[in-house]
Amino acid sequence: MQLRQTSLNKACNGQRRAIAATVSRSGSRYKVVQVANAVHLDFNAVSFKKELVSFAGSEEYIVRGGRDKFPQLKEAFKNIKSVGVIGWGSQAPAQAQNLIDSFAAAGLDIKVQIGLRMNSPSVAEAEAVGFSKAKGTIGEVLDVVAESDLVILLISDAAQAKLYPRLLAAMKPGATLGLSHGFLLGVMKNDGVDFRKDINVVLVAPKGMGPSVRRLYEQGKSVNGAGINCSFAVHQDYSGNAADIAIGWAIGVGAPFAFSTTLESEYKSDIYGERCILLGAVHGMVEALFRRYTRQGMSDEEAYRQSVECITGPVSKTISTKGMVAVYNMLDEAGKKVFQEAYTASLGPAMDICYEIYEDVASGNEIKSVVQAGARFDRFPMGKIDGTYMWKVGQKVRAERDEAKIPLNPFTAGVYIATMMATVQVLKEKGHPYSEICNESIIEAVDSLNPYMHARGVAFMVDNCSYTARLGSRKWAPRFDYILEQQAFVAIDEGSVQDKETFQKFLVDPVHSALATCSEMRPSVDISVGGENSSVGVGAGKARTEFRSTVAA
Amino acid sequence: MQLRQTSLNKACNGQRRAIAATVSRSGSRYKVVQVANAVHLDFNAVSFKKELVSFAGSEEYIVRGGRDKFPQLKEAFKNIKSVGVIGWGSQAPAQAQNLIDSFAAAGLDIKVQIGLRMNSPSVAEAEAVGFSKAKGTIGEVLDVVAESDLVILLISDAAQAKLYPRLLAAMKPGATLGLSHGFLLGVMKNDGVDFRKDINVVLVAPKGMGPSVRRLYEQGKSVNGAGINCSFAVHQDYSGNAADIAIGWAIGVGAPFAFSTTLESEYKSDIYGERCILLGAVHGMVEALFRRYTRQGMSDEEAYRQSVECITGPVSKTISTKGMVAVYNMLDEAGKKVFQEAYTASLGPAMDICYEIYEDVASGNEIKSVVQAGARFDRFPMGKIDGTYMWKVGQKVRAERDEAKIPLNPFTAGVYIATMMATVQVLKEKGHPYSEICNESIIEAVDSLNPYMHARGVAFMVDNCSYTARLGSRKWAPRFDYILEQQAFVAIDEGSVQDKETFQKFLVDPVHSALATCSEMRPSVDISVGGENSSVGVGAGKARTEFRSTVAA
Repeated sequence: MQLRQTSLNKACNGQRRAIAATVSRSGSRYKVVQVANAVHLDFNAVSFKKELVSFAGSEEYIVRGGRDKFPQLKEAFKNIKSVGVIGWGSQAPAQAQNLIDSFAAAGLDIKVQIGLRMNSPSVAEAEAVGFSKAKGTIGEVLDVVAESDLVILLISDAAQAKLYPRLLAAMKPGATLGLSHGFLLGVMKNDGVDFRKDINVVLVAPKGMGPSVRRLYEQGKSVNGAGINCSFAVHQDYSGNAADIAIGWAIGVGAPFAFSTTLESEYKSDIYGERCILLGAVHGMVEALFRRYTRQGMSDEEAYRQSVECITGPVSKTISTKGMVAVYNMLDEAGKKVFQEAYTASLGPAMDICYEIYEDVASGNEIKSVVQAGARFDRFPMGKIDGTYMWKVGQKVRAERDEAKIPLNPFTAGVYIATMMATVQVLKEKGHPYSEICNESIIEAVDSLNPYMHARGVAFMVDNCSYTARLGSRKWAPRFDYILEQQAFVAIDEGSVQDKETFQKFLVDPVHSALATCSEMRPSVDISVGGENSSVGVGAGKARTEFRSTVAA
Repeated sequence: MQLRQTSLNKACNGQRRAIAATVSRSGSRYKVVQVANAVHLDFNAVSFKKELVSFAGSEEYIVRGGRDKFPQLKEAFKNIKSVGVIGWGSQAPAQAQNLIDSFAAAGLDIKVQIGLRMNSPSVAEAEAVGFSKAKGTIGEVLDVVAESDLVILLISDAAQAKLYPRLLAAMKPGATLGLSHGFLLGVMKNDGVDFRKDINVVLVAPKGMGPSVRRLYEQGKSVNGAGINCSFAVHQDYSGNAADIAIGWAIGVGAPFAFSTTLESEYKSDIYGERCILLGAVHGMVEALFRRYTRQGMSDEEAYRQSVECITGPVSKTISTKGMVAVYNMLDEAGKKVFQEAYTASLGPAMDICYEIYEDVASGNEIKSVVQAGARFDRFPMGKIDGTYMWKVGQKVRAERDEAKIPLNPFTAGVYIATMMATVQVLKEKGHPYSEICNESIIEAVDSLNPYMHARGVAFMVDNCSYTARLGSRKWAPRFDYILEQQAFVAIDEGSVQDKETFQKFLVDPVHSALATCSEMRPSVDISVGGENSSVGVGAGKARTEFRSTVAA
């Protein structure tokens, strides 16, 4: 195990001691509700060893991956002769190519086929990287589904929602359905139906976009520990070795570590997280901060630097390597005071929206809305949000950027970290495991999405995500914007932020320690992102930036 | 029938002829979907005469009210010895007092009781206007429900959602449940339950807030035709004379005209309308316009005048008396060009959000969200939205207002009327009757809500609505704000608004003629509103501006 963030771990050791003394205090402005852990995390795998890890005192199972585990794929995939990867979006090209390479390295004769509509422009893209209709490694969607022992379903959420009855019906009895997102479970719950009982249903969710999954896998061939971590879940174990198949799949796509979760916990935290700090909240927040700073007299360029650049630059880098509290500790006394006030005023309003999002996701509302929106796309195509004045300012600021001179604005940092903590806190109260909380609220933000935003702006990032994420971000970003301006900023400007305890609780929150534990499992190579007009690292190039039909299968 | 808007009717006669020639043209940017009329509007009443009225060629039943119909209440209410009015919010004080006065005028010995929790502060308010525990005209909620032949349920939506099983169980067999909003039906559909079969279920929904319902009723004692129109519906007719009871109730509270609808059509259009042009859209729109105008160099005060004051002043007054097209016709050539472009660019984006709202309401999502929010109020009380910078500017502008000098800004007018037409168009496509469309999209805006907003600002108005309306407005206002800025304003600034047909369709839309027909049934006395620091016309005074528990029954 490689330990990269020594200072973060040191900081947290101090905090761990402090927690016992303070965690039982009460009287915060917002009552803390403890919810029993809603997910069951144990599993039985024979090919891979599970390890119990303590995250801030809460024990969770993980599995260690890496290329040295490839020999175990033979046992794990003993009943799998062919893998069908359905779709060609962000994840499919990466996962299909990684599996081919891993099977080759393990000496396994397992066929990997891509399932596409034959009239899809994706056929040419798949052929460009070596798949071929002639060689039988590209086939019609339902044919590939029917032939495969492991069907990895990577078409869009909207397409899954529309096509799942036919896809499920086409599967072989005893085959394994593999999902990289639990969205389909949410759809099926809304529809009141279950998966057929004679198949396995498993999840492997890489914690990064497809191109990173491919690039870091390739680096992992020479650099030890490079790769994208995954969470995995066994939803239905028909064959008795579904956990082995899931973990084998995770290791096959290159996960250095795999964290156990459930399909339900994954889709709730994922759909929730992208609506909160990962995309929606950060977008709405910078719109509100930019407005505030220009009203206070800053130039447009300076306001952009003090809001967007500050978050996607120094704040993200510091959290990534040293944790959230380190951002506060970097400030001088005056800055600390501003941070405290911004944090204290923003936490409650941000939690208000985070709670609403979580409960809309958990109740099925959000998934129903996404499905309904999909049915309206022909008439109301989703426009880009990146064309407004603020994001034009951003282009100019990035063109003239001096990375070393990006300011650490204490107000911006306080609002951002409060919203990150609000995202964390709701997941904690709803019973999610810490590995998932840290990934969906912090790590994915500072190590994956914010670096892209730093390269191209927040609105560009949103415009290039999946439909589910784009729809959610467009829906919730303005809510965070308005509530911060209407509640947090008004309270600060009125001088009515008096509460001290909220900030004291932040300093000793157990999540800092959990994050330090997660950081010990962090891949050894960072995601790299291309700049303006580069498609490196942003989706799968053109395929992700152009409008596609919602039923892209 | 009193005809007040001669110019509006003249304008529409011309348009009626134009419609036949243009309504079948196609090729708009947004495909028009025709949906079969979803509501059934006929009814059987023996005590009152129904009239068939043509709204833009679509025939709907109405009933003429007025004090001269009071003698017919005896027959209509033949089985009703006691009426229980449950709650003391906006509607209850007005409806209870009006019914007492109407029963007295009709010589009927029908008891009117108020049902409240005995520890509620509303008890003292009800006693202040003459109800009394001692006289038996104030009782415990469930006791009053159990004793009444007509139970008029006017507690908050959240309280209805929570208490309905006990309220329904307490009712006498054969009694009538009266609702002023179909929200409860939406809740029960989400819960998968029906009303018990041995009661009548009817609706009377006054088209104005409670204080207006009372004040115009009192004026109606001397001024012919004063009062607030109502829609009414019979959802379940157990006794065989439920329509008579509903219409009698509408006339008893003072409706000059009553329009037939269904419970489902009412709650969908009502919840939808307040999220669109009535509250949510107008709030989001003025935030976006204010920002745009200040960025373009206007002073804050001028930007407020050119956005909020323009809409709540001259635009509303013109639409109220002469219709939407008249606003356009008041502009000079340059202004007409600006209006056309603003209208054309805004209609599609506004319809995109309107469609999303409608489908979230119709699918039960919106009601589920409201119920979930109610359960979070203890922890996350709804804060006010009226404290931000823009609304402080508004206070200053109103204090210095010269009504005659409020500008008619063609850009603002174009955006506003496009969003109004978007609200109209979705209701039309979803099959609502024109009387309902005109009321929920236009009349309630320009004759009821916008005058309040003119007196106190938009955000103040939102803060003083029902929870359902406040929650919806907070949820959707920012969506209209963002989509207008991201789509409509960007298109205008890029000079990419080329489509001519959208605006030509506006000029000949059948809704102008339907609105003219509605205006012939407009009450003869306008709603009056008090100014800054006055509670006249705003909710029921303090009772509506203070935070109350969500289960205020």
